[in-house]
Amino acid sequence: MTDPLPTGATIGILGGGQLGRMLSVAAARLGLRTHIYEPGENPPAADVANAVTTAAYDDIAALTAFAHAVDLVTYEFENIPTEALDVIEAITPIHPNRRALGTSQDRLVEKTFLQSIGLTVAPFADITDAASLDAAIATIGTPAILKTRRFGYDGKGQARLKSPENAEAALADMAGAPGVLEGFVNFTSEISIIAARNPQGEVACYDPGENIHRDGILHTTTVPATIPARLRTDSVLLAAKILNTLDYVGVMGVELFVTPQGLIVNEIAPRVHNSGHWTQNGCAVDQFEQHIRAIAGWPLGDGSRHSDVVMENLIGADVDKVPSLAREKNCALHLYGKTEVKPGRKMGHINRIT
Amino acid sequence: MTDPLPTGATIGILGGGQLGRMLSVAAARLGLRTHIYEPGENPPAADVANAVTTAAYDDIAALTAFAHAVDLVTYEFENIPTEALDVIEAITPIHPNRRALGTSQDRLVEKTFLQSIGLTVAPFADITDAASLDAAIATIGTPAILKTRRFGYDGKGQARLKSPENAEAALADMAGAPGVLEGFVNFTSEISIIAARNPQGEVACYDPGENIHRDGILHTTTVPATIPARLRTDSVLLAAKILNTLDYVGVMGVELFVTPQGLIVNEIAPRVHNSGHWTQNGCAVDQFEQHIRAIAGWPLGDGSRHSDVVMENLIGADVDKVPSLAREKNCALHLYGKTEVKPGRKMGHINRIT
Repeated sequence: MTDPLPTGATIGILGGGQLGRMLSVAAARLGLRTHIYEPGENPPAADVANAVTTAAYDDIAALTAFAHAVDLVTYEFENIPTEALDVIEAITPIHPNRRALGTSQDRLVEKTFLQSIGLTVAPFADITDAASLDAAIATIGTPAILKTRRFGYDGKGQARLKSPENAEAALADMAGAPGVLEGFVNFTSEISIIAARNPQGEVACYDPGENIHRDGILHTTTVPATIPARLRTDSVLLAAKILNTLDYVGVMGVELFVTPQGLIVNEIAPRVHNSGHWTQNGCAVDQFEQHIRAIAGWPLGDGSRHSDVVMENLIGADVDKVPSLAREKNCALHLYGKTEVKPGRKMGHINRIT
Repeated sequence: MTDPLPTGATIGILGGGQLGRMLSVAAARLGLRTHIYEPGENPPAADVANAVTTAAYDDIAALTAFAHAVDLVTYEFENIPTEALDVIEAITPIHPNRRALGTSQDRLVEKTFLQSIGLTVAPFADITDAASLDAAIATIGTPAILKTRRFGYDGKGQARLKSPENAEAALADMAGAPGVLEGFVNFTSEISIIAARNPQGEVACYDPGENIHRDGILHTTTVPATIPARLRTDSVLLAAKILNTLDYVGVMGVELFVTPQGLIVNEIAPRVHNSGHWTQNGCAVDQFEQHIRAIAGWPLGDGSRHSDVVMENLIGADVDKVPSLAREKNCALHLYGKTEVKPGRKMGHINRIT
């Protein structure tokens, strides 16, 4: 175990989007610096970082220089090419670890792992071709969802099967990518729990938030969630089990379906999570600082909540509402500095303290 | 009146200390960028700013380029040379305005102004030499405090006169600088009110905080202050009067003595203020964002408080307490990234949510 990162040390962050941006601000609050690695020009995180490397994830020289320039590396998204991680890890530590990343990058590996530690997931099957899909439909039934094993987010890379007749079209949508068929879960609500673990093995969780999606993108997270105390406890215990088993260091978002039979794990994200943005205005230590504390080997915040919050994403033209939102009492704005508005693009979010 | 600053616009900040640092973070939260102008190397604000100019305040070329690179200019300290402001103001607006800055830069001008708008200040007199000091002591009496008219902060540039016999030594301490003799005020507590005004003329105040100093430096600010509701109202009204009279745009800190006869204005600071740091963890819109909103022509936050807070400065070796403070429940850390610890140096602060 290494010593806690001291004032002035530099954290490298793979990805320069809004999550990297908010991680940079949190690092600054702890006296730490950040260096962003991002292929795109003018990434949101660059506004608040000490240094930016603009290079592709297959640029070995740039990756090498980046890894040498920082004290450790973390990331804001999970679809980082393995080769890039290999280059970096030969030089400096990566948190959360490769096992966590590898597990969450692949839906089949993830679900198999979760099931192996005794957690409940939706019925699933490995889909490689029409025959395996037909067999899976026979077992799991319809409705069901066919998803790519890798690179899906915000509802992308998914096809719904209302009946077995949709099988051929759904498989065509996958364009040959390996997939997973997931059985339909009849859930009453979706919650997520944001959990953290540091190298000393401390685990801290925030209260679960209740999520509402629109068009496959998170719309609001409300805390506290309207769930029984028993399920709150269950969610903390299962999150801790996942983190401990993976020897995880950092913040993880765990999405859960609430069903009459208990909690079903939908997916895990080895990073700060959109459904944890409420912590910025609800807690003394928010999820971004919690992640930095964890990977820097600092003590974790305890996750306690001083205020109830409803987080709402500002997607695309929602950002036009900012002038009126700015007038609302107890409404905290968090804009990402993106000048180009596109449909479906996350432009910012608000936290309404309720 | 100009339109509100749009996403991606750049605010220039004179001074790169912790106040500039926290202003930069607040600007980012609103989708705005910052450019720091600071003579010293590696200023704290550089960690979270888009651009930094390292140049002296008499470097006309650097000031000119800076003013052209930004959409408007603000500052984190009041002792900016007039010539630098002249260069900048010929190119781009400065908020708060020159009148506010000129007033607060000079204790004599400040006290005369405050008195002229009907506010109570301590008895004071213009001191230019031994004769004027003797005359002032005869009128005001002792104990009293001799202060330089300009460039004082955190108790520097001040000499206490316990009796008339201290006059000669006190004057020698001033080293020929013009001074002001201030009569002793028998106050029960010191409070400060953080007020903001935007170009539309909206004014918003935070609840006054109660300040405790140690060795002439702010130690803690506690909100709410233990004062009667009547004085809370008085403080808001007098702050609004100051801001309106100066046609002020931005955040101002107003330090007040609480006495049995009512509030006495100690001094005003035309910028975000150490005694307003509690707002970071007590309000949806903190004083840094409020300042940015004001100078950017945005609607102001309403200043309402969702939590009670005790702010404590971490001065010099206080920063050694960070590892244990990091374990405290409901304790928010705000470190400035300064690697060199010096006695009396502000290294960070904490906000305890109470």
